[in-house]
Order: sequence, then structure tokens, then C-alpha cells
Amino acid sequence: MATKNAQPTGGARRGPATVSRAANQRADAQRNRVKILAATVTAIRKNLDASVADIAAEAGVGRMTLYGHFQTRAELIEAALVDSLERAEDVLSQIPLDGDPRAAFQRLIASSWMFVDQSRALLAAAQKELSAARIRELHEKAEARMRGLLLRGQREGAFRADLPVSWLLTTTHVVLNGAAEEVRTGRIDPDDAPWFIDAILLPAFTAPPSAR
Amino acid sequence: MATKNAQPTGGARRGPATVSRAANQRADAQRNRVKILAATVTAIRKNLDASVADIAAEAGVGRMTLYGHFQTRAELIEAALVDSLERAEDVLSQIPLDGDPRAAFQRLIASSWMFVDQSRALLAAAQKELSAARIRELHEKAEARMRGLLLRGQREGAFRADLPVSWLLTTTHVVLNGAAEEVRTGRIDPDDAPWFIDAILLPAFTAPPSAR
Repeated sequence: MATKNAQPTGGARRGPATVSRAANQRADAQRNRVKILAATVTAIRKNLDASVADIAAEAGVGRMTLYGHFQTRAELIEAALVDSLERAEDVLSQIPLDGDPRAAFQRLIASSWMFVDQSRALLAAAQKELSAARIRELHEKAEARMRGLLLRGQREGAFRADLPVSWLLTTTHVVLNGAAEEVRTGRIDPDDAPWFIDAILLPAFTAPPSAR
Repeated sequence: MATKNAQPTGGARRGPATVSRAANQRADAQRNRVKILAATVTAIRKNLDASVADIAAEAGVGRMTLYGHFQTRAELIEAALVDSLERAEDVLSQIPLDGDPRAAFQRLIASSWMFVDQSRALLAAAQKELSAARIRELHEKAEARMRGLLLRGQREGAFRADLPVSWLLTTTHVVLNGAAEEVRTGRIDPDDAPWFIDAILLPAFTAPPSAR
């Protein structure tokens, strides 16, 4: 972001005021975009069906400004989800996944939960607005990381190998979202959620043949 | 239906042709309603975002006729879901739930799956159109049955009691729907789904303390 702004300022030194004005406009547009995306998360958290007008009001920008950035509500919800997933990636990519697969799985669940919890309203809005396939596609990086860990666990005998990894992955995904629904309705405290998730997934994924 | 039609015919014998006409209109309306609800399931299966016009076309009725029964798409989707849940109830209420709780759970999962599989497109459309709370409310009877079985299993020591029954119930619900998503994307064969569901839920719900 800093480099993007620096370049046009350099251009302004070379002469024409129009370059500087264009640079300011780009910086304004960038600030508005950031404001609108943050306001989307807030407005959706207040009301899952918040309209584009509600979101513009929350961001303190005009509706026309908002439409200049995002032409439809779906486009806006998708951009906010992409943004929140990028932030999650910055954290999730730092989690050490080596060593005992069960312990690594618990670390990854704990951090994944943090983001599911933060963005659960946004995700619920996205589920109404975008296709399931598109939502899954947006989660590709996070999914690939979890898949890699589950596969390693299967290879090393820590996770059962009689179920395809895709089913373990889907189960992880739906149980995480199920916990989010329990938190939303007040049946689970958000801080306890990782424990509840592990309590289901660990025995399910590591069950000895006799317990199945 | 037969008795409903018989009554007005008797009325016609008593004289005024208007009674008979009103009766015919009621019978027509009833037939149209049944046709529209069946067409909703078919149209939604073909295209999750099928419009009211698409559904009317599928039913072979005019849009105005459809709107005479259901004023909005949401109302129509909800009525189709209620209808399909009532059919499911007829079957689910016959399943013997006594004896070994694990075996009873497997019986209930197998039949529940059958209905989840049949109505998964309708449910996906409902998730876009109705609130999660309303959908859960419509599943109340099915949920109460499963809850009763899980509670008995916990009391009798067949299911673990360190997790609230509400969390076991939500887990069951999301894993059933997760399997439906896997079937939709072709990763699981619908006939195998009950096995995949049990493979996750039984060890998760019956894990000995050492496995957690």
C-alpha cells in the first residue's frame, strides 16, 4: 500500500498537478475501499440482511461511492470475505504443523476457530449470497493446509485411513461451522468452542477399529 | 381428500349448483396446491435458484394461480419443506428406538439420511430463503426424536455424557448435511452415506475417556 502511494507522489514532483490529483483520488479510493470492507463486517454482524445502503451508512460513504467499488451486494460480501480470509492466512500460515499430527491438528483448529468466530456473520451472509462452490473455492488455501495435515496424519497412522481425506475435511469444516452456530445461539461460549470441536473430531478421526 | 370431495357432492344433491361449483373449485385448488408443491421440489432440484415462474411452468399452472396459493418464493419454499418433513415424520415415527442406543441411532440415521438425501436441494434453497432459526423450528419433531434417543444413550452410558446433548445433536445435524454436500459434489455415493456418517458419529459419541 505504501509503495502504491509513493509512486504517484514521485510523479507529482515531475510536474503536472493532475498526476498528484490522480494520486490523491487513488489514495481516497483505497481508503474508501478499506472503510467499506470494514463496515461490511460490522453491518452484517448487526444484521445479517444489512442492505448496501446500510453498509454505505455504516462506512460513512455515499451509496454511489460504494457502487463505484462494488456493483452488487454479492460482490461486496465476496470482497469482504476474501479480505477476511487473507488476514486469516497471514496467521494460519505461521502455525507450525510438524510433530505429532494430533497436536498440530489441535493448534490448527484453535486458530481456525478464531477466524470462523470472527467472520461467522459474514460467512452466513455469504452462504445466502454466493454459491457453496464459490465459498469453498475461497477457502482453498486454508483447506489445502488442513488437507495436508490430515493426509500426513493418515500416512503416519495417527488418523484413521479407512475414510477418504475429503470426508475428514468436510467433517472438520461442518463441525467448525456447527460450533459457530452454537455460539451464535448462546449454547457454547466462544472460548470453549475449540474444546467442543476437538472432543468430536479427535475421537472420530483417531478411533481404533474396535470403536467404529 | 376423498371425504372432502364427497361432502360437497352430497350438498349438490340438496339443490344449488353453486355449492357443487364451490366444491369443484376447492378440489381444483387442492389439486393445484399438491401439483405446485411437487413441482417446487422438481424445479429446485434442476436449479437451486429456480424462480416462481419456473416453478409455475414446471407445475403447468399460471403464475397468478401460483400466487393465489403462495404469495412469495420464500412462502412456497417453506410450504414445500413443511410438506416434505411431514412425509418424513410418517416414516421416522415408525422406527423402533428401544434396545441398544447405538443400534437405534444407526437405524434413525439411516432413515433420516434417506430424507436428507431426497430433500437436499429443497433444504439448500430454504437455507438461502429462510432463517436458520426457522429451518431448525421446522425440524423440531425430528430433532426431539433424536434428542430423546441421545439423552437415553447418555443416561444408559452408551453415549458420552461429558458433552451437552445439544452439541451431539448439532454435530449429528451438520454431519448429515455435510454428507449431503459430498453426495451433491459426487464424492460420496448416496447409498454409502449412512456408513460415512456413522463412521464419524459413533466413535465421536461413544469414545472412551482415554481416546479424547
